[in-house]
Amino acid sequence: MRNLAMLISYDGTAYSGFQSQPSGNTIQDRLEAAIRLLTGEDVKIIGSGRTDAGVHARGQVIQFRTASRIPVERWPLALNSRLPDDIVVHYAQEVPEHFHARRSALRKTYRYTILNARHPNVFARRCEFHHPRPLDVEAMKAGLSYLVGEHDFTSFCSAHTEDANRVRTIYDARIETSEMDGDAGMARGRRIIVELTGNGFLYNMVRIIVGTILLVGEGKLAPEHIRDILEAKDRRLAGPTAMAHGLVLWEVVYEDFQPFLQK
Amino acid sequence: MRNLAMLISYDGTAYSGFQSQPSGNTIQDRLEAAIRLLTGEDVKIIGSGRTDAGVHARGQVIQFRTASRIPVERWPLALNSRLPDDIVVHYAQEVPEHFHARRSALRKTYRYTILNARHPNVFARRCEFHHPRPLDVEAMKAGLSYLVGEHDFTSFCSAHTEDANRVRTIYDARIETSEMDGDAGMARGRRIIVELTGNGFLYNMVRIIVGTILLVGEGKLAPEHIRDILEAKDRRLAGPTAMAHGLVLWEVVYEDFQPFLQK
Repeated sequence: MRNLAMLISYDGTAYSGFQSQPSGNTIQDRLEAAIRLLTGEDVKIIGSGRTDAGVHARGQVIQFRTASRIPVERWPLALNSRLPDDIVVHYAQEVPEHFHARRSALRKTYRYTILNARHPNVFARRCEFHHPRPLDVEAMKAGLSYLVGEHDFTSFCSAHTEDANRVRTIYDARIETSEMDGDAGMARGRRIIVELTGNGFLYNMVRIIVGTILLVGEGKLAPEHIRDILEAKDRRLAGPTAMAHGLVLWEVVYEDFQPFLQK
Repeated sequence: MRNLAMLISYDGTAYSGFQSQPSGNTIQDRLEAAIRLLTGEDVKIIGSGRTDAGVHARGQVIQFRTASRIPVERWPLALNSRLPDDIVVHYAQEVPEHFHARRSALRKTYRYTILNARHPNVFARRCEFHHPRPLDVEAMKAGLSYLVGEHDFTSFCSAHTEDANRVRTIYDARIETSEMDGDAGMARGRRIIVELTGNGFLYNMVRIIVGTILLVGEGKLAPEHIRDILEAKDRRLAGPTAMAHGLVLWEVVYEDFQPFLQK
């Protein structure tokens, strides 16, 4: 059996999330069905992490074992022709036996995009959250800075989180803005991108962080309150869970799978 | 009655084109229904031009007469709340009585986007044409240059074109490329944008020009053949009609309606 890892993207709009469910409408179900069509095998794929219903991925990594002898470089095109057009396999590589898409991940980056403009952008509406009211980006940056480092993120994860250990490390938290003046979707205003890199994220953690930082941007919460919320370890003190469609699993970094370095 | 002009965008994926049809599934039908919900009036809107099924617009301009006293600046939000999320009104302005969205247009710009990369980009797949094989962009630019100026474009319009006069002027024809290396959709390769500005375009004209220029890019047609095809005035000599979804009505310029200058 070979152990294969693949880099994939998906537009999560139409799906009930990454992980298999009885309803069947998930990214994992579609990928496993495509592999079955290609090889006849019933494989179980492992993703670097689960993404919720409506969340997208630019650089999700999946991994599975196969007895197929199809050369590894042929897998992306072979699977793409058997997948719906909102899921794309970009790159495949044989990885060491011990490689595991979730457990071997060194760090992950998520991006949340906020369109801060009067009207939405029709072309990007599926992957950015439209917020027409003014936002104080400097305050948002100040609030976000309290989350960098190793913390217990109990306040910033869903009450339904199964992990008993809520300690995670955020290596980097940044906000980039780009002004738009009559760009592709005609929206006047700016795009605010919240980017978080960490060793792992709890259930709904990025969306709750963004929902709370949006309260800071709206002036409803002082930046330094983020520290108090963190210390209280109480989900009820943080803001609402931001809408799923603004979130993209951007990149997952491994020692043994480095697609960005390949041509 | 006031004469109102509005700047709108739409993702044309789900529609049978701009202009009303008995089937009802058009941009015009949705806009007229939203105006009816807002004002109770049965207005007939005029667009700067018809876009085909699947073609998008960033800067379409519509115009209609209304007895409504709703202040002009309130129209965009009022209509957006009554429109599906793939149609957005960005700006509204009262225009002189003689203003006509089609006849008053001074020039129009269309953009056609080609993703020249191994795999498609899931996030932009609805508005760019994926062409994985190599393209010679310099040859495409050379071929396109023969179309600038006033010409009879009979070879480059649908055999179903109703206009007897097939003479149009292309003021500007350019190709811009942008390299992509692991961008939002992970596609490695480049985006090739064909931008055409003219005093008007015949039925399918931009798509047939792009379909023919793609043959030049693939090395199947010499750039100077574009001149021969133009002179022959024979649709059968030009290339195929490029797919609708890569095309966007980008901008329409008027003397009396200048939304890009407004704040």
